[in-house]
Amino acid sequence: MEGKMAERKEKTAGEMGFEILANFIGCSAELLNDMEKIKSILLDVAGKAGFTQVGECFYKFEPQGVTGIVLLAESHLSVHTWPEFGSAAVDIFSCAGKENAERALILLKDAFKPRRVTVHRIER
Amino acid sequence: MEGKMAERKEKTAGEMGFEILANFIGCSAELLNDMEKIKSILLDVAGKAGFTQVGECFYKFEPQGVTGIVLLAESHLSVHTWPEFGSAAVDIFSCAGKENAERALILLKDAFKPRRVTVHRIER
Repeated sequence: MEGKMAERKEKTAGEMGFEILANFIGCSAELLNDMEKIKSILLDVAGKAGFTQVGECFYKFEPQGVTGIVLLAESHLSVHTWPEFGSAAVDIFSCAGKENAERALILLKDAFKPRRVTVHRIER
Repeated sequence: MEGKMAERKEKTAGEMGFEILANFIGCSAELLNDMEKIKSILLDVAGKAGFTQVGECFYKFEPQGVTGIVLLAESHLSVHTWPEFGSAAVDIFSCAGKENAERALILLKDAFKPRRVTVHRIER
């Protein structure tokens, strides 16, 4: 099987990494509207989870809401927030294994303090 | 049910949008290593699929590989490529409904011309 995959010389389903899609529900509206704070959280989490940052882009909506991404050598972290609903959608895409991604999820939960979280875990 | 949700005033599972996670397999290695071309494709697809761009960030790996994202008013498009495997991981996150996201997937397939595609569709 391994040999066959090597011969094919392509990444296929399940070989491109691991992605966590988390919905954070019941967060502080103030935090969810604070772009600088959210940027700081994502950069901090990226480092602490063992990822290497290669770029970032954030945007603040009017009257409210923040969207942003940290590009990683190992793929990306993204967040989109709805302060009016206390909710945020967080994506953690890691082509460097599951452990870093799960650590990032724990750190992001610690920072955003959602009352409730729903998670999809996808083998890319 | 609708009334109950309105009372809760929060977005919960299935209410934050729709996300397509696609693996493109068997693409041109040359295209997958061309950051400017990939940026141009993503920006073009974002517009043609009816999304509004609010930011972008791309990075070229050495010796090969491109990673990038277009931030949208409606969430994001991201791509991570492995030219050495002819493969790319594409995410299309739309909080503006499924139709735009599915249109973006068709347009991205037209541009990257993968020999094979695997897709996960997630209700966020």
